[in-house]
Amino acid sequence: MLAPMNASNDNIVALATAPGIGAIGVIRISGPDAFEIVNRLFKGKDLLTQKSHTLHYGTIVKEKKIIDEVVLSLFKGPHSYTKEDVIEISCHGSHYILQRVMRLLIDEGARLARPGEFTQRAFLNGRFDLAQAEAVADLIASENETAHQAAINQMRGGFSLVIKNLRAELIHFAAMIELELDFSEEDVEFVSRAALTQLITDLQTAIEGLIESFSLGNVIKNGVPTVIAGKPNAGKSTLLNALLNEEKAIVSDIPGTTRDFIEDEMVIDGVPFRFIDTAGLRTATDQIEAMGIERTHSKMKEASLVLYLIDLASDTIKAYHKQIQDLEKTGVPFLIVGNKTDQAQETLKNIVASDIRSVLITASTKDNLVGLKTKLLEAINLDRFKSSNTIVTNARHYESLVNTKMALGQVIAGIDGQVTSDFLAMDIREALYALGEITGEITSEDLLDHIFSKFCIGK
Amino acid sequence: MLAPMNASNDNIVALATAPGIGAIGVIRISGPDAFEIVNRLFKGKDLLTQKSHTLHYGTIVKEKKIIDEVVLSLFKGPHSYTKEDVIEISCHGSHYILQRVMRLLIDEGARLARPGEFTQRAFLNGRFDLAQAEAVADLIASENETAHQAAINQMRGGFSLVIKNLRAELIHFAAMIELELDFSEEDVEFVSRAALTQLITDLQTAIEGLIESFSLGNVIKNGVPTVIAGKPNAGKSTLLNALLNEEKAIVSDIPGTTRDFIEDEMVIDGVPFRFIDTAGLRTATDQIEAMGIERTHSKMKEASLVLYLIDLASDTIKAYHKQIQDLEKTGVPFLIVGNKTDQAQETLKNIVASDIRSVLITASTKDNLVGLKTKLLEAINLDRFKSSNTIVTNARHYESLVNTKMALGQVIAGIDGQVTSDFLAMDIREALYALGEITGEITSEDLLDHIFSKFCIGK
Repeated sequence: MLAPMNASNDNIVALATAPGIGAIGVIRISGPDAFEIVNRLFKGKDLLTQKSHTLHYGTIVKEKKIIDEVVLSLFKGPHSYTKEDVIEISCHGSHYILQRVMRLLIDEGARLARPGEFTQRAFLNGRFDLAQAEAVADLIASENETAHQAAINQMRGGFSLVIKNLRAELIHFAAMIELELDFSEEDVEFVSRAALTQLITDLQTAIEGLIESFSLGNVIKNGVPTVIAGKPNAGKSTLLNALLNEEKAIVSDIPGTTRDFIEDEMVIDGVPFRFIDTAGLRTATDQIEAMGIERTHSKMKEASLVLYLIDLASDTIKAYHKQIQDLEKTGVPFLIVGNKTDQAQETLKNIVASDIRSVLITASTKDNLVGLKTKLLEAINLDRFKSSNTIVTNARHYESLVNTKMALGQVIAGIDGQVTSDFLAMDIREALYALGEITGEITSEDLLDHIFSKFCIGK
Repeated sequence: MLAPMNASNDNIVALATAPGIGAIGVIRISGPDAFEIVNRLFKGKDLLTQKSHTLHYGTIVKEKKIIDEVVLSLFKGPHSYTKEDVIEISCHGSHYILQRVMRLLIDEGARLARPGEFTQRAFLNGRFDLAQAEAVADLIASENETAHQAAINQMRGGFSLVIKNLRAELIHFAAMIELELDFSEEDVEFVSRAALTQLITDLQTAIEGLIESFSLGNVIKNGVPTVIAGKPNAGKSTLLNALLNEEKAIVSDIPGTTRDFIEDEMVIDGVPFRFIDTAGLRTATDQIEAMGIERTHSKMKEASLVLYLIDLASDTIKAYHKQIQDLEKTGVPFLIVGNKTDQAQETLKNIVASDIRSVLITASTKDNLVGLKTKLLEAINLDRFKSSNTIVTNARHYESLVNTKMALGQVIAGIDGQVTSDFLAMDIREALYALGEITGEITSEDLLDHIFSKFCIGK
């Protein structure tokens, strides 16, 4: 089913800014009567005679009582976010005022918007496709440079373009195959089966690339899962605290934008790292949280990366080699962190330093944390993040891509098994359907409701 | 010292909306270079050629990377909040984006605004007087209708007008007295001492009215301090929960504007009530929080009102009379709440009902909570709140008014003691000074810094 181009006949209102006390709070109203509704409450210029994209100062008045002095932003459809008539009311940011003004708008005939409903209207009115609309929520939620860049590229249509190009190629071949159906009596082949196989294989490769990028996309959104491990007293909690305290100072340097600090997340050069089960690490002493090899190993398996601390001051060379062997057995990428360089045994230090996977630090004095961070970024293969390749960050898109891949696999199996054009056409249509779901060329109301309900209110 | 009309030569920036994730977040920049600074980061129309009070869609770009799609609101001084050039940048409401855009603005030469600095500039540039500026902070903090109305009246100059009128009368007489000084050799009286005494007495009455209104103003801001008292098992916690749960449902009926519910505050008909030391009331059972008569009595003295519960089911008539006698001794206004009407002893019930200060309820079934609320509003003398008289809500204004009153007292004492004109003039000047501090006609930088530092950032 194609997304309906339905002009909404009702007017929705919501708080567009974060809840809480601020200098200003913005209430947004969208719909065919937005101007009339606000005009009835606004004392100032007659809004109905004003141009789009203008600002107007005045008061919101009810029964001769002034509720607030406000500034209105007028957007006439289609030159607005929703492509409908939109007014943004910039009030003083008090809970009482914002609630009061919203209530007045509702009394005048607007209704409260559902979460994501403004963006849903923008999508339904053709402002952008579904993948772009979804990126709006990602953009608002993005907490680091990499996630932000992925979201903004997707919002501006980068990802959609990739999908549309793939789909266009498939549509072209689908058309040819369907044409064969019309001439099926004559047993002609408009499409060389070899060429089709080649195309489908190319498409599969492209789609596999996108599917693989999802593990990156996931990391971008949720952070690289990282475990700090090592023997008791190797300095694990000292290291974690050193890394996080530095991060804390960076995060909160602009007042008014501070947020709850994520206790176990750290952003290095735009890439987020998330430390697994580190709450105990910080509060407990190293001895106490020596929770037994098995538990540590099972944690390691959740990790994309292990920072393994070696105590250069007191470990033996034999024990060191044993630890590295154990580490290699886990199969998880790791970084050897030689700690306590200031009290290091010279031989052990040289042995550790000679391993290309190692970095030497002193956690207690924060010595060479910079070197550790560089190594961290190398270890997770930063280039994957910095490439201009499109990254899939959305689980729904991932699922559609997997479905596309399966359908394409059936097309190839069909060609190999020399099935007739009509069966091929059916499989190609399935692949087209799965791809079309991503950008919303194929969609259903249920799907839309599901997607937009995850948005925040007011967007 | 008069407030200097200083044109600021630097540009200030701050987040204007509440921190946290929202659909949009607004960054505000004010100063002589606001347009140039934003123009260097904005890809869209050339801002320098645009008109005031217009909206512009475009992107914020740094090193060819798009940071966000934004809408700019342009305000050219003096037609702006600060009377300087102002731009409001409406971004997607992500912490990352808002911090990034603010940082870019700072890199381009703006600096972070101090708390209240936008309003301080508005004051210094003559947009409003000091009392009006202070009302902006009150308005944002207002959590109920009464506080909101007091703040908006003050912001719109109602309070300032009262002060200015009082001051104008004083100035008129001061001028006459000063004239006498010029002719002091000739021992003339331009001002009849009887007329002066009458004027000063009238002013004192007016100022005493304002001083008295401060206890109301305080209540408006902080709630009527109320204690729920009564014997163990009288139903105190049941009543408090019944009242608060109802309130909770009202407060949170518009999503997106919900705030942390103030656990011990309740608003009835726009008037806030604050329950003292009720945390224990709600968690503990009645038995446990029977904390001893003395402690209850000391709490009562903090209260403006006591709701005293009588258990109609099990109290004796003798005990009832004893309790009421004890209550009367405290001197605190109280309301007798006969609880458990559903199981009431008929005689006791009739005795309680016959007291004009009483109301009968059943807390457990929420029966007659409406009656209780009406009685509550009566008990605190609602008319005081609903009067159109000016209410002083600000401790600084209160202090200035007290100083004015003292100076006026000295004037009268001087007249009575037949002091010379120059002494009278000095005392009148002192009264003028104290009054002038309220609206900022008399001010100092220290005072301004103190006032505006209590504002939220971005205002």
